[in-house]
Amino acid sequence: MRPQRLVDAVLFDTFGTAVDWRTGVAQAVSQFTSEVDPNEFALAWRGRYQPSMAPIRAGEREFVDLDVLHRENLEATAAEFGLDLGNSDPSDVDHLNRAWHRLSAWPDSTPGLTELKREFIVGPLSNGHTALLTNMAKHAGLPWDVIIGSDFTRTYKPDPNAYLRTAEVLRLPPHRVMLCAAHNADLAAAKDVGFRTAFIPRPTEYGPAQREDLHATGVWDVLARDVVDLATQLREHASA
Amino acid sequence: MRPQRLVDAVLFDTFGTAVDWRTGVAQAVSQFTSEVDPNEFALAWRGRYQPSMAPIRAGEREFVDLDVLHRENLEATAAEFGLDLGNSDPSDVDHLNRAWHRLSAWPDSTPGLTELKREFIVGPLSNGHTALLTNMAKHAGLPWDVIIGSDFTRTYKPDPNAYLRTAEVLRLPPHRVMLCAAHNADLAAAKDVGFRTAFIPRPTEYGPAQREDLHATGVWDVLARDVVDLATQLREHASA
Repeated sequence: MRPQRLVDAVLFDTFGTAVDWRTGVAQAVSQFTSEVDPNEFALAWRGRYQPSMAPIRAGEREFVDLDVLHRENLEATAAEFGLDLGNSDPSDVDHLNRAWHRLSAWPDSTPGLTELKREFIVGPLSNGHTALLTNMAKHAGLPWDVIIGSDFTRTYKPDPNAYLRTAEVLRLPPHRVMLCAAHNADLAAAKDVGFRTAFIPRPTEYGPAQREDLHATGVWDVLARDVVDLATQLREHASA
Repeated sequence: MRPQRLVDAVLFDTFGTAVDWRTGVAQAVSQFTSEVDPNEFALAWRGRYQPSMAPIRAGEREFVDLDVLHRENLEATAAEFGLDLGNSDPSDVDHLNRAWHRLSAWPDSTPGLTELKREFIVGPLSNGHTALLTNMAKHAGLPWDVIIGSDFTRTYKPDPNAYLRTAEVLRLPPHRVMLCAAHNADLAAAKDVGFRTAFIPRPTEYGPAQREDLHATGVWDVLARDVVDLATQLREHASA
């Protein structure tokens, strides 16, 4: 008889959990201009991310994808840093904005996903839209089985519908789906709607000064060192 | 400089083109009952497929997924064959209905897709919904980069929106997307909205008596023997 699996699908937060956005975005910034500190600019750009989604989660703004929000946030960040985007070739600005499509995986992500894929459906559960996540997967070598972008669920985490609609698209009950994330708040929202949860730390996501999400702060089903360790623990669960 | 690629994404019809539905469904029928000829039953069940989507394409019925249509068609086919589904365990009937999730790939599909994946986004462009196509990919070993099911586009091929919405989800103009299919009518509809097209023959899809789609009957961009040959031809185009 087939060993009992804890879940049928293991889905991942992407920005920060599967890929290292800070290094990738800072590199794109440094290629675009020498007028700003690339790391500081990347952190400030990302800093506008959560606030920019709030009106959409609240139903005050119609859904727009992350290319739109990243572009608005890029323009605001450039203004904050005194960088005049109007001096640049529009296609270079667009290329910079799409840095979020070209991020690299943390070293354990692809080996861990490759292992998990043998037993589970693996996919992102991200605020990225399908095109962004597809380009990211091609660039980073993330071997997802399926990509259900925010343009399908039409909302942003941690809105409960972001999780519930994803499970519904997979035709799985929430308790048969696990979210793996490096962010306790994301896991808390997933757990609230009945998902299984796995925390992995990404202590340098925001750089050496990172203070949040260094450790699990909730009761999650699995605490893993990284994606490879998650695969090992889920395999041991199945054979226990 | 990177060689010029003909397109950015190569998408595939699934039932008949990527997977062999007839053999897989007949096998599931034979496991379910010995009262009917499995091959004849599979052909009759599939025969109800196109008519069952027509009211949805025409806007006369709200979108329902293929699990629903396959189930309605299974019940009609069983009645036609004098098979009383009420005598069976409901979970066995459900398992039979989901035979369409458990089809096997034609021998060239996975090797060809693996090769195409190095240069192109590969995915299905199928009337299947995301969950069905995900299960099919896991079962058949189809290494899709992305799955955009009919539950995302909310319509069925050959409705032009089935193709156009898929390209839009990928944020690609239609002429940067190729459809590969073993069905001339599918390719004609894709071409009409600006897709590139590739025909591969699957002369035994409907069995030895197959009369349609034995050859290309339109002017398609590529005529290939199979998916491996398609990958070879597209690579040669890029290096030409």
